[in-house]
Amino acid sequence: MDTVKNYIEENKQRFLDELFDLIRIPSISSEDSHKDDMYKTAEHLKAGILAAGADKANVYDTAGHPVMYAEKIINPDLPTVLVYGHYDVQPVDPLELWDSKPFEPEVRDGKIYARGADDDKGQLFMHVKAFEYMIKTDQLPCNVKFMIEGEEEIGSPNLKQFCIDNKEMLKSDVILVSDTGMIAKDIPSITAGLRGLAYMEVEVTGPNRDLHSGLYGGAVANPINILCEMINSLTDENNHVTIPEFYGDVIEVSDEERAEMAKAPFCLEAYKKALDISEVHGEAGYTTSEHLGIRPSLDVNGIWGGYTGEGAKTVIPSKAYAKISMRLVPNQNSDKISELFAKHFEAIAPKCVKVKVTALHGGEGYVSPTDTPEYQAAHNAYATTFGKAPIPVRSGGSIPIIAEFEQILGVKSILMGFGLESDAIHAPNENYPLFNFYKGIETIPYFFKNYVELKRK
Amino acid sequence: MDTVKNYIEENKQRFLDELFDLIRIPSISSEDSHKDDMYKTAEHLKAGILAAGADKANVYDTAGHPVMYAEKIINPDLPTVLVYGHYDVQPVDPLELWDSKPFEPEVRDGKIYARGADDDKGQLFMHVKAFEYMIKTDQLPCNVKFMIEGEEEIGSPNLKQFCIDNKEMLKSDVILVSDTGMIAKDIPSITAGLRGLAYMEVEVTGPNRDLHSGLYGGAVANPINILCEMINSLTDENNHVTIPEFYGDVIEVSDEERAEMAKAPFCLEAYKKALDISEVHGEAGYTTSEHLGIRPSLDVNGIWGGYTGEGAKTVIPSKAYAKISMRLVPNQNSDKISELFAKHFEAIAPKCVKVKVTALHGGEGYVSPTDTPEYQAAHNAYATTFGKAPIPVRSGGSIPIIAEFEQILGVKSILMGFGLESDAIHAPNENYPLFNFYKGIETIPYFFKNYVELKRK
Repeated sequence: MDTVKNYIEENKQRFLDELFDLIRIPSISSEDSHKDDMYKTAEHLKAGILAAGADKANVYDTAGHPVMYAEKIINPDLPTVLVYGHYDVQPVDPLELWDSKPFEPEVRDGKIYARGADDDKGQLFMHVKAFEYMIKTDQLPCNVKFMIEGEEEIGSPNLKQFCIDNKEMLKSDVILVSDTGMIAKDIPSITAGLRGLAYMEVEVTGPNRDLHSGLYGGAVANPINILCEMINSLTDENNHVTIPEFYGDVIEVSDEERAEMAKAPFCLEAYKKALDISEVHGEAGYTTSEHLGIRPSLDVNGIWGGYTGEGAKTVIPSKAYAKISMRLVPNQNSDKISELFAKHFEAIAPKCVKVKVTALHGGEGYVSPTDTPEYQAAHNAYATTFGKAPIPVRSGGSIPIIAEFEQILGVKSILMGFGLESDAIHAPNENYPLFNFYKGIETIPYFFKNYVELKRK
Repeated sequence: MDTVKNYIEENKQRFLDELFDLIRIPSISSEDSHKDDMYKTAEHLKAGILAAGADKANVYDTAGHPVMYAEKIINPDLPTVLVYGHYDVQPVDPLELWDSKPFEPEVRDGKIYARGADDDKGQLFMHVKAFEYMIKTDQLPCNVKFMIEGEEEIGSPNLKQFCIDNKEMLKSDVILVSDTGMIAKDIPSITAGLRGLAYMEVEVTGPNRDLHSGLYGGAVANPINILCEMINSLTDENNHVTIPEFYGDVIEVSDEERAEMAKAPFCLEAYKKALDISEVHGEAGYTTSEHLGIRPSLDVNGIWGGYTGEGAKTVIPSKAYAKISMRLVPNQNSDKISELFAKHFEAIAPKCVKVKVTALHGGEGYVSPTDTPEYQAAHNAYATTFGKAPIPVRSGGSIPIIAEFEQILGVKSILMGFGLESDAIHAPNENYPLFNFYKGIETIPYFFKNYVELKRK
């Protein structure tokens, strides 16, 4: 493994060029117009993984976007690591806020700027290159499988079925994922918990057509005003979510555990400064880290209605819309929460409007124990390449499929993320530092080595 | 005047064709891309009015869109009627809700469908054709001036200065305007009052960039949630506006006057049915007619922020926006209200966000006495052509420049509107019934005749 640094140094420009080729295909899973790009990306990955040394690779059709599966079986008696990642990316709007084109990657100030630079093309590609290294230097210590999907950003609606249909093919001892972040460039961490998600869209209809706000203003319910009133009522003055039974399944974390978590380094002043905010804003009685790690939340992700162009238009619109999502903690069920939300939203609608609530997608939270061979293998890998022990953290984000992997395949996942908060994933100017990209390629082979050794014991 | 019906019958197709030519020029005053169309429309009108019989007509530049002025002076000793109208129109979005193209007028079920069909191209053009009739049949009883502007839909920002600069040219005894509605096809009415307007845009900024709602949700103020909370707080549970001093200058209407107003025909069930709403929604303690006629209101005309495309995007946006307008009653001052709004909105902003408030435009309300020669002339004109006396009503809409005419030119206006509520002005599928268009042309010459006779007394 001591040759990995040299291997990276010798191939660093090629690794980057290859990643750029992958990024250039605009694989936005939520937009129908990119359907062909999804196939293109899957095929591109397949060719890359075969070139890196896989025995076989295939692009599998699903009811949605395809899954790229590949494997290298060196000995059926050895452990098998299943690498999971996703080649789909988030939409790019608002486009005008990007400093360079989202699908024309470029390096500025030591960072790769592009949609997918981190999430998840950059991170999954580290695995392809780490795999190439182990193959080319004859150091692959176990079997490897790759399952790279194209629907993570829309909630992996078809991967569950793919896992059910291909249980035997996907048989493995552990699932390895790089789709999360670490605390800082010099503070490695392992994601030991994820939040779940329930993502809803609501439509509020007032009058049956747009009205002149002078001729009707003050006499007819304005669906935007009503929507604001309804959204406002979803949280109280302590920022508790007011949906009945919302907190029913939340497991309160013990004071002892909270004290342990509080040891993770966190500077509130630096956090506020980085976001240019004067104050944070969260549920009363919890710290910022706790808001993200152990408490559910509710956010409006989008709102629209009426006239949004230049200048003034005096209209009362017929309809107003919002996308509202809730992050859930382990043991909250996303289907149940979606139902509670829908029921509550319909119940609080005043008679002067009609409402329609649609669940767009959801997923469950996840907790990873820290006393397993995979956790220890990851821990030791970071310790070797970063020179310090990684910190276990509960992330506020969601990877809904992780909980499903455990249910369907009976296998635990280990989340070795190399992203940084400043990577601006899902936002304009998404980026991924070259340091993190190469450090990931360097760290992954140690995980394989450590894992096989620990499993042997 | 008894020949007017015949004249209309003989020329009805030509009148329609000419109106269609006027409508086809997309003169949207609020959109910069239509700047040239504003000149085209003004020039087109000038040619039409000269052809109808004006002595002279000119297109005057302003700091914004041009004003078309024309006149026919038959005798300086006779009274002068100044016809005011506007050739600019509202934007057309949402375009997908139109059943035909907004600038390709067509007649369906006896109605002209197009942007501007009623507001105000259809209504102003009635004056051009009524003028043509009086000229061609040698029945024009007084001097006529036309002032047709191109900025009414954006608050007439430059007409005030035009009036100041051209006071002598615009000298007149009364201003005649058709830019309002009547109660129903068979219930003529005269607008005796108008509401004022204060139109604001607000911007709420949370974090300095869009954030991933998983990694930040629950810990950072979401500007959409905060905007909803702030908008919600602008009205209380009785739908009173909560801005301090907002009602300070509102003149309470006496019980006697309210009882008089309540005599105007109004069927709440039919009103609700026409809008497909189960309940109306307005300030507690007032009827629907009163909400529109004698009470100020507050409406969100547009709201936007975050992800508004197809599917789900888990983002906390950096910014959220709304356009918020208030309709004012006479004696409320729009500048004062704009200031009160801005001060209040800034005061209620929580520390976790920054807010920016911009006043987009404003205008004052207006009350017309019913005992003047112009009111009586209009009253008798409707009585002649509709066979029944018109009802004086207070409209909920605003024509801010009407109050300014009185201040600058010292002349009262008379509002002879022929539009219907179902005309959907400012909305998709704006329309204007042929009946109203032709009835307007028929009624206007009687106003001229009556007015000159009453002034002579």
